[in-house]
Amino acid sequence: MRTLDELRGLVEEALGSLPFASELGELEQALRYSLLGGGKRVRPVLCLATGEALGREPAELLPAACSLELVHTFSLVHDDLPALDDDDLRRGQPSAHVRFGEGVAILAGDALLTEAFRLALAYPSPEVGRELASATLGMIGGQYVDVTANGNLDEAGLTRLHHLKTGRLLAACVGCALAVAELPEQESRPWRNFADEVGLLFQIVDDILDATGTAAELGKTPGKDEAAGKVTYVSLHGLDRARELADEARRRVHGQLDALSADTTVLATLVEAIRERRA
Amino acid sequence: MRTLDELRGLVEEALGSLPFASELGELEQALRYSLLGGGKRVRPVLCLATGEALGREPAELLPAACSLELVHTFSLVHDDLPALDDDDLRRGQPSAHVRFGEGVAILAGDALLTEAFRLALAYPSPEVGRELASATLGMIGGQYVDVTANGNLDEAGLTRLHHLKTGRLLAACVGCALAVAELPEQESRPWRNFADEVGLLFQIVDDILDATGTAAELGKTPGKDEAAGKVTYVSLHGLDRARELADEARRRVHGQLDALSADTTVLATLVEAIRERRA
Repeated sequence: MRTLDELRGLVEEALGSLPFASELGELEQALRYSLLGGGKRVRPVLCLATGEALGREPAELLPAACSLELVHTFSLVHDDLPALDDDDLRRGQPSAHVRFGEGVAILAGDALLTEAFRLALAYPSPEVGRELASATLGMIGGQYVDVTANGNLDEAGLTRLHHLKTGRLLAACVGCALAVAELPEQESRPWRNFADEVGLLFQIVDDILDATGTAAELGKTPGKDEAAGKVTYVSLHGLDRARELADEARRRVHGQLDALSADTTVLATLVEAIRERRA
Repeated sequence: MRTLDELRGLVEEALGSLPFASELGELEQALRYSLLGGGKRVRPVLCLATGEALGREPAELLPAACSLELVHTFSLVHDDLPALDDDDLRRGQPSAHVRFGEGVAILAGDALLTEAFRLALAYPSPEVGRELASATLGMIGGQYVDVTANGNLDEAGLTRLHHLKTGRLLAACVGCALAVAELPEQESRPWRNFADEVGLLFQIVDDILDATGTAAELGKTPGKDEAAGKVTYVSLHGLDRARELADEARRRVHGQLDALSADTTVLATLVEAIRERRA
């Protein structure tokens, strides 16, 4: 069984050597700029680690894992645009629209999303592509709530927003591994519950970091949520209670992992890295 | 065999009753606004008519046909954005970003593209989705050339631009029908040649109309190409020669249709409608 760092190395290698459609021409530079500018690769590593726990080799999972990172990168490129979250800094570098202009950034995001589907459709079955489409629609729905809610969200609304905007794609990392491993539906439920809880943990930690991190630590502009008047776990509950909620979510995730009949050592390490944000 | 109008009626009905992902919430209004605001439905009708010529019922083709119109609509919504072609008028109505704001228009385009793949993946085989992904990447590559060329295109460059920006998706209308009909690769070649030539005809007519049509006739701002200093068949060759080129393309398309061993009556009518722009 590979370590977290070994899995991350496989992901970086695969992303770095992805062949993009030749028709994209020089637009490819904008795709590579956004895709290869760092990032923790939580999503593809979660996909590979779930696959390994289910007895599948990383090579089988890599197209799905890369497609998930492409969708994630597409969402960052579009969300950073002035008309949406308007963020000039991403992964410690100028955002795509700052580097290439807004028009090219819009097209680069469109191309990243389409390349994601091209990769997901390399499998003989359309199942991985279906997981990806469903999760992406949830994510877009979440971003729509985020940009239109104007701070008018109660806790149930916030939970729903996070479930859509962050949770659905993280859950699809597990879902794509289940699809590749062809796990029967009735055995998938505990895996999907684990995936949902990881998404929640991830978002609470993200909210805490937005409130406490520096630009150098985050690689993006900190304090954006508060400045934009966004509802977060920190704005709703305060920092201390948000940290307690993160620890509670962490404990629940570990409980779910322990209940799975599989070797989940690497997944447990990944959960710790998410909580400590070393991942 | 159904007439062109009957096929168009089936397409309108299917588009009007498409179930979008519930997670999109009120963003769905922006998708429906752009999708149902008129439009000639050339792409889905071409898909259905090709399917019928190959002996397949429209019902089998409708998911693929609708996915092609969704991709076309996605491209219109994003291309109309201020950072790209900056067009305030589309299908005789305010463009999506004028009606809903730029941020929502970006998300609506993303959702239309993703819904297209969800539809294309309703088939048991991933082949329709693969046709769609490949054509969409070509189309995005063409739009990239269009917005970055700044009028620096010779005739070969213009032909390549049109092949990518317009031709690839029109060819995919035929390609998706071939995929659904499971036509063997060696029998597909003449169909794909026909598809390529239809794309060229379509673009020459489009360039002529941009130079000669009114906003009421076109449903979009006329004269945009010239104002933007874009290279078109009209700017390269003049209006008279462009009309001759359209007629030559029309004759070649009919020749290709006649050589196909299938009943291509409805396809021939569609070609005439494209030339006369009654389609």
